[in-house]
Amino acid sequence: MLIDLIKYFLYNDPVMKNIYLDWAATAIPDQKILNKIYETSIETFANASSVHSPGIKAKKLLENSRELCANALKVDKKNIFFTSGGTESNNISIFSIIRKKIKGRVISTNIEHSSVLNPIGQLEYLGFDIVRIDPDKNGIINPDKIEESLTENTTLVLIIHVNNETGAIQPITKIAEIVGGYSNKIGKRILFHCDGVQGAGKIPVDLANSDIDFYTISSHKISGPKGVGLLYCKDNIEPLYRGGGQENGIRPGTENVAGIYGFSLALQQAVDNINQNLESAKIKCSLLTETLAKIKECRIIPEQRVSDGTETSDFFSPYILNFYIKNIPAEVLVRVMSEKGFFISAGAACLSNKKHESQTLKSMRIDKNGMSSSVRISIGPQTREEDLIDFCNVLEEESKKLLNIYK
Amino acid sequence: MLIDLIKYFLYNDPVMKNIYLDWAATAIPDQKILNKIYETSIETFANASSVHSPGIKAKKLLENSRELCANALKVDKKNIFFTSGGTESNNISIFSIIRKKIKGRVISTNIEHSSVLNPIGQLEYLGFDIVRIDPDKNGIINPDKIEESLTENTTLVLIIHVNNETGAIQPITKIAEIVGGYSNKIGKRILFHCDGVQGAGKIPVDLANSDIDFYTISSHKISGPKGVGLLYCKDNIEPLYRGGGQENGIRPGTENVAGIYGFSLALQQAVDNINQNLESAKIKCSLLTETLAKIKECRIIPEQRVSDGTETSDFFSPYILNFYIKNIPAEVLVRVMSEKGFFISAGAACLSNKKHESQTLKSMRIDKNGMSSSVRISIGPQTREEDLIDFCNVLEEESKKLLNIYK
Repeated sequence: MLIDLIKYFLYNDPVMKNIYLDWAATAIPDQKILNKIYETSIETFANASSVHSPGIKAKKLLENSRELCANALKVDKKNIFFTSGGTESNNISIFSIIRKKIKGRVISTNIEHSSVLNPIGQLEYLGFDIVRIDPDKNGIINPDKIEESLTENTTLVLIIHVNNETGAIQPITKIAEIVGGYSNKIGKRILFHCDGVQGAGKIPVDLANSDIDFYTISSHKISGPKGVGLLYCKDNIEPLYRGGGQENGIRPGTENVAGIYGFSLALQQAVDNINQNLESAKIKCSLLTETLAKIKECRIIPEQRVSDGTETSDFFSPYILNFYIKNIPAEVLVRVMSEKGFFISAGAACLSNKKHESQTLKSMRIDKNGMSSSVRISIGPQTREEDLIDFCNVLEEESKKLLNIYK
Repeated sequence: MLIDLIKYFLYNDPVMKNIYLDWAATAIPDQKILNKIYETSIETFANASSVHSPGIKAKKLLENSRELCANALKVDKKNIFFTSGGTESNNISIFSIIRKKIKGRVISTNIEHSSVLNPIGQLEYLGFDIVRIDPDKNGIINPDKIEESLTENTTLVLIIHVNNETGAIQPITKIAEIVGGYSNKIGKRILFHCDGVQGAGKIPVDLANSDIDFYTISSHKISGPKGVGLLYCKDNIEPLYRGGGQENGIRPGTENVAGIYGFSLALQQAVDNINQNLESAKIKCSLLTETLAKIKECRIIPEQRVSDGTETSDFFSPYILNFYIKNIPAEVLVRVMSEKGFFISAGAACLSNKKHESQTLKSMRIDKNGMSSSVRISIGPQTREEDLIDFCNVLEEESKKLLNIYK
């Protein structure tokens, strides 16, 4: 179903196409959910810690929201902690080990989001032994490499669920199993963290029956409100910061009940429709990949993704596609396409304001040319096949012109 | 002006009065602002870090919001950082000193909010030398006591602007001056942090012309949305956690642009009307204090507040009033009044779910009886004199009954 007002703003412009293809940066919000948030902000405005009746009402909705999320993720509600977003969720679990007396090993990858990469850099600065695993040329981490890196003094392993730039789905269940098995062998728990920001509600994951200790979710990536996130957390941990003891002390501060409720509705909706949306996204992504492949000088990253659609489809999220037009700088392509009303991204939004090179693409050994030209299309349940065809047509036209300049 | 829907929910109940007197826990939201947030969530939904035109639009609104806040506070916009709330803001500045090689002295008080008290406890655990100053019997910190505690190895001084339980206004400008003067004398900067959550937009403060280095604001305490806050920060600091570099690295994570915009409107409105609201609140508070004083066994905390209204009015926020009915437990009074449709608080909302005793009241040497009976009324610009009269009438009736039980 299309979202009315968004439809108005995005599709009904008399001049521009306004086709939004940057869902991995932020999803188009769901207007039904915005309506609920608006109503809740009024009807349930009290502080959830207040003990008078409006406060109790707010607390009840907060706990109902936790239950909605727990049910969606098929886990216990005591393991659900609401936060201000994916970045904070990642940081809470990473920095929970900061006070360890023995600074052990932390194993992660070179394809993590900056909200994992940068805190890990801090752990390194503080004396932890950081091992960063490179992916294969497809951008996928080989579980064997994790296994080889495990040591008795390993504390934490962090692997992204779905890479935000390439859409590569990581074998997290397999890796969690390896980490869990090793933990049992040495008789000491090694925690396994999974950044689920691009995976949650899109690519199924079975938290209850896996050895995943932490899983992070961002509300606005699944059409919920911004400023809300979730940390699934199997055990008690040290909080990142302290205050009035909300969220069992793990994330203090007056709860944004209306936003949390909106998020829980978004998560429930995403999970309820996960398979249906996924099938539909696969069809759209195949169409997009095939059409792009025909455009002159256009290359999909990784190239393997296009060569054999059936075999690789389980390894990539159909919601994210990375490609480049040889020699055309990413910023130029994004700007030109934006002027035509198509909104894509030059790398991850969180990095797109900076001149940083992509750690993910570099670790996949994408050449400099590919790295500086790489752009990301990301779609959502509301993206239409005709939008993608329109996009490819305009891209072909525009890149033809640009190729005359950037030879 | 009254807020229509809130008015409906709070005043038009056929059975209950529904008079909300817990504004210090959270303010009744402003519906005009909620409308703006709703519109903005749709029209400006993009990620502010995206470089396409919807992203640029979001970034522009984010920076406009920063400018609105800077103008309201009469400071430079480069010193404004948006956060997820007061608790996070307090923690960011407190933990910015965590990596200091030399763990120096940190001076604070026993009347801070839990989002300052608890992080300071952590600093102590990490080896900092914490000095906690007691207030006088009125709950006010004597600047001389701060001066006496300053040492060459002092790093940070933290004083709350307006105490959240008693409304006592602290002499922050004077203390900032002392800290600044001492810093100059020793040729080393001692940072001065002020938790402004109950002061901002209510009790004037001149940040630009003071030696205050940090000032924290919570959006929902001034009728803005929950989940948004601000840290005024004079200089660059180490961030609490890391990610995509938003808010100049001090507070990473995708910005909640709609919420931030709503908050900036709330702050602007509060500051625009600060004097007018304050005068009106003083009248209401005097009325309330005088009426309460006539109720049997009712005591204002601190008692000095009632004895000489004119002289003490500059020392207490008229938005917050603490009192107790001798022998009646706070929880009982809050529940009974809630059943009658009057919503007040047993101590700070952030603590009201717990059996903790109030650090603030304890440090004021309020006796055990007073501490366990103390409740807080907090009002807002929309509170009406008739609401307060109604409250006092029902309180008198109910406490008469309760006094027969709790002799």
